[in-house]
Amino acid sequence: MNGSLVIVGTGPGKAELMTPATQAALAEATDLVGYGPYLDRVPPTAGQCRHASDNRAELERARHALALAAAGRKVAVVSGGDPGVFAMAAAVFEAVERGDPAWRALDIRVEPGVTAMLAAAAEVGAPLGGDFCAISLSDNLKSWATIERRLKAAAEADFVIALYNPASKARPHQLGEAFALLRAVKAGETPVLLVRAAGSAEARVIATTLAEADAAQADMRTLIIVGASTTRRVGRWIYTPRGAKP
Amino acid sequence: MNGSLVIVGTGPGKAELMTPATQAALAEATDLVGYGPYLDRVPPTAGQCRHASDNRAELERARHALALAAAGRKVAVVSGGDPGVFAMAAAVFEAVERGDPAWRALDIRVEPGVTAMLAAAAEVGAPLGGDFCAISLSDNLKSWATIERRLKAAAEADFVIALYNPASKARPHQLGEAFALLRAVKAGETPVLLVRAAGSAEARVIATTLAEADAAQADMRTLIIVGASTTRRVGRWIYTPRGAKP
Repeated sequence: MNGSLVIVGTGPGKAELMTPATQAALAEATDLVGYGPYLDRVPPTAGQCRHASDNRAELERARHALALAAAGRKVAVVSGGDPGVFAMAAAVFEAVERGDPAWRALDIRVEPGVTAMLAAAAEVGAPLGGDFCAISLSDNLKSWATIERRLKAAAEADFVIALYNPASKARPHQLGEAFALLRAVKAGETPVLLVRAAGSAEARVIATTLAEADAAQADMRTLIIVGASTTRRVGRWIYTPRGAKP
Repeated sequence: MNGSLVIVGTGPGKAELMTPATQAALAEATDLVGYGPYLDRVPPTAGQCRHASDNRAELERARHALALAAAGRKVAVVSGGDPGVFAMAAAVFEAVERGDPAWRALDIRVEPGVTAMLAAAAEVGAPLGGDFCAISLSDNLKSWATIERRLKAAAEADFVIALYNPASKARPHQLGEAFALLRAVKAGETPVLLVRAAGSAEARVIATTLAEADAAQADMRTLIIVGASTTRRVGRWIYTPRGAKP
């Protein structure tokens, strides 16, 4: 086997936010595997095969990519954002762990990218300027009780909180429940940002407060940032100072 | 005033990890302001002024950049990594808040970049594959009690924990104290990664466990990742599955 597999992220959307290392890895691949809309962001290369798939079934997609690499292909698995943050890298290593032992000898590497919360933060100022955490609200693979426990811990310890995967058609209620939980711990005037399609030409920001935040304004392409107690507005920007309340 | 100020991050080190948007912003600037080693990563542009400074005194550097922009210059403030994560963006907005009210009318924007924890994670697999948090161990601007409270909350809620600024000559003991605190909550076999100069040609990884982690092996250029209860090794990689323990 002299195939290889690289797991990349296209960044948040605009081509200008995809790293040159990722561009090079994509250009060298014989096969691209990924969710269709992410593959559409990759410029065409002659002779390259594209294996587009549904957004679910990540493990199946990872197995397909590993099988192609084991057959000698140079495969790139394409995520949005950074591949290591709520994206394909973990799914590939899960597939390695559960799959053909020969896959452990494959040449596999990960290229980092710009993940959605960094692009969302840059749209509004510097809301991630202090300690922060990132939580996926999808309970497809973990219990809602685990998510609640993490939200509560993050709020009580005054982290800035970035919420990924806030809502989908199959999961319309999670974000509203998360806001309700956070309102029980944090002040109503805490800044809340709903940033849709951050780092793309269609970026749209809703800057509101925890008391007024409306979960219905978020969809699958929205990244939510809930401020810490120190997060505040200056001019038209929102930022979190580097220090913390004692 | 028709000057402008853009706050950028060079990424973790290698030129191939700096986004094209950041490269373009740097090439258009008349003035670069930043810590010397970060400025050294920027390719030269004819006629551009470089204002290198010490790594401390971030607010002073931010004020200098704002004054240049107010005087009509096109200024780029240069951080490593992503400018919004434990870097210059928050310092610039602090300086705006405390400074000349005219600064609020300036054209200021932030370009996202690849922050150190993403590059560190990519070096070893996908350790940030689940919910995670990022904590700076520097107590220059927040109390050690605040840091301890956040470490404890993150450990109890089973986040993967990325530690920035683990140690400096002026603060040699923080990381050892953080490991001691985490050992009281988390299993000794929890994977711990000490990744020095991630995403650069000199990257070096120490993969160990919480029981055996040695704080003396970290310096200012080291990013630490402490796993969740599910983080594990497969082959030569370390990853955190997308799901969580119930």
